[in-house]
Amino acid sequence: MREVVIIGAGQTKFGERWEKNLKDLMAEAGTKAVMDAEITGEEIDALYTGCMASGRLIGQEHIGALVADQVGLNPIPSTRIEAACASGGTALKTAYLSIKSGEYDTVVAGGGEKMVDVLTGKVNYALGGAGDQETEVFNGATFAALYALMARKHMDKYGTTEEQLGKVAVKNHENGAKNPLAQYQREITLESVMNSTEISSPLKLFDCSPITDGAASVVLTTKEKAEEMDKEYVEIIGSAQASDTLSLANRKSITSVKATRKASQKAYKKAGIKPEDVDFAEVHDCFTIAEILAMEDLGFYEKGEAGKAVEKGETRLNGKLPINPSGGLKSKGHPVGATGIAQAVENYKQLTGKAGERQLKNPEIGLSHNVGGSGATAVVHIFRKMK
Amino acid sequence: MREVVIIGAGQTKFGERWEKNLKDLMAEAGTKAVMDAEITGEEIDALYTGCMASGRLIGQEHIGALVADQVGLNPIPSTRIEAACASGGTALKTAYLSIKSGEYDTVVAGGGEKMVDVLTGKVNYALGGAGDQETEVFNGATFAALYALMARKHMDKYGTTEEQLGKVAVKNHENGAKNPLAQYQREITLESVMNSTEISSPLKLFDCSPITDGAASVVLTTKEKAEEMDKEYVEIIGSAQASDTLSLANRKSITSVKATRKASQKAYKKAGIKPEDVDFAEVHDCFTIAEILAMEDLGFYEKGEAGKAVEKGETRLNGKLPINPSGGLKSKGHPVGATGIAQAVENYKQLTGKAGERQLKNPEIGLSHNVGGSGATAVVHIFRKMK
Repeated sequence: MREVVIIGAGQTKFGERWEKNLKDLMAEAGTKAVMDAEITGEEIDALYTGCMASGRLIGQEHIGALVADQVGLNPIPSTRIEAACASGGTALKTAYLSIKSGEYDTVVAGGGEKMVDVLTGKVNYALGGAGDQETEVFNGATFAALYALMARKHMDKYGTTEEQLGKVAVKNHENGAKNPLAQYQREITLESVMNSTEISSPLKLFDCSPITDGAASVVLTTKEKAEEMDKEYVEIIGSAQASDTLSLANRKSITSVKATRKASQKAYKKAGIKPEDVDFAEVHDCFTIAEILAMEDLGFYEKGEAGKAVEKGETRLNGKLPINPSGGLKSKGHPVGATGIAQAVENYKQLTGKAGERQLKNPEIGLSHNVGGSGATAVVHIFRKMK
Repeated sequence: MREVVIIGAGQTKFGERWEKNLKDLMAEAGTKAVMDAEITGEEIDALYTGCMASGRLIGQEHIGALVADQVGLNPIPSTRIEAACASGGTALKTAYLSIKSGEYDTVVAGGGEKMVDVLTGKVNYALGGAGDQETEVFNGATFAALYALMARKHMDKYGTTEEQLGKVAVKNHENGAKNPLAQYQREITLESVMNSTEISSPLKLFDCSPITDGAASVVLTTKEKAEEMDKEYVEIIGSAQASDTLSLANRKSITSVKATRKASQKAYKKAGIKPEDVDFAEVHDCFTIAEILAMEDLGFYEKGEAGKAVEKGETRLNGKLPINPSGGLKSKGHPVGATGIAQAVENYKQLTGKAGERQLKNPEIGLSHNVGGSGATAVVHIFRKMK
């Protein structure tokens, strides 16, 4: 079986990118990744691109061919993958399998979304496509409302507090302040979170990730080729995906995300590691409660313990398990189709020592965790530093 | 390298399916395919689903998880693939690669679209997402208009006539009349084509494929497993995909579809066959001119010769190279995300002798050709009867 590695990564500045359209953003991230990988376009066999809602946001489907042409790579095969906010993670997994298949040697996995230059109501409605149209969206549920239900139940059941949620946001802004590609490069205080506008109780404005334009790309190839090139790489030692019901109402529990549990268990097994072997993780904090759920469902903490760990600072950059060193979706930004790939970009940077001011001390194993909807899709990848 | 085979296929009735929603249609096709394959749900490792425009048509993205849950298969990995009207073909190719990778043994590749219960203008605008939003759709080009440009140029350059285009439709209705799952199970005359409303000159109403609801599925597994099961199968001996510019304006030629040429050349090479070895083909006749282009670009006819071959009846069921025995997109219907999979369903049926009244005489090699947009994506699969 072939082993798959990342040899290059690129990300655009996340934020309000009024001056660039989707294909320009994707081309910028792809070009950065390819230059980082020190390969030429002729060496690329295929492209896979995660994008969630370009049809409703900018009237454009068929993103695969669009991107291939924009970067001058047509006629290579180029395919769009969609799994709501897990589109990037599933694109990475699909690209990984395509190399495992032996059909392709070098593949670019990218993701992007253009969200800012659309009315907020339209964005919220487009994002609603990640939930169940017939039972959730039709009845007026936004994603903030769905995650608020999960938060309220978690608070009732485990005593998780609004302050603990708020501290997730404070910690992620602390990290994002050190990331020159983050949307919000500034620290915030717990007070400002607690005093921010209520969006859907108990979630306040600063519990929510923002609306973001941006793109990210990684170059995947075989370990063999990377070694031939004498190129530094990061190995993908686990890749797993799982599904669940779209609607919260059909789940047995809303204080735990089954798809995250299933995907991470499979990924750990494939990688031959345990949760405690992970040195840092990029998790899907679309809302602060989502980071708490991820910390527990990924097996890092017992149920109900994650909020306390955040309070103690255990997941800060200098803590025992840094989470979202990039700033996470909250501070780095959340261009939905790009997010799963941007998590892989951060893993690559941390494991090759290129993470600048937020660089962790010699991490060996990193994890990415990308969620679609309120947990109907979860994708987990485990990355290992080159030995 | 593992060999990949189809062991079951299912398709819903195509047409105006007012009584079923998208997930019901997909579940119906999937269940039929799984029953045909004589496997249980527990044996399925993953799902890949082609769907083009569910976001804009029915407000629902995240189709992968939706389908997995609807058929009772969550938490297995389930992913949506989108490449406009080639979404089904790319889903098949992605599923094929996932088995080649060794990660999965048995996978269902499906596709579907729910288009009828939406205003026609909205459907046309949603389908426009397959073309270039900035240069084509924004300026008012519909897909009929784009294909009309290709038709006009082909007529000017090669002398192809409106009657030859019309005869493509007549032939496809002749076949569709024998397909109990086709949208239009009736023959039409050349006169009725020629007298039908002009849509975008030279294309008339009967040169255009219809708006359709429907879904299709195939079950893929390894040749080894099929033989262990002692199950009849059809082998996928070639699978290739290529891309081109989205907009017609950026192409060197609009009388030939480069992505079709590139994808078919690769598929023939992998299969170790030549175009003349193909016994029948399901090609992407979204408009009658598209079938003419496909006949030439797939290498079956020299440029400019396809119209004459249609006129002579060479592509009828009893001709030397039957094309679209299922009725094609024109008569069987064109639920865009399902089309590429429905072409594989017809190949499976013809090569296993299950095509009923339209059964060809002992074909050994079949081909499917699925196009996205005006040719920015093309996917070609070559199928061989079990030896």
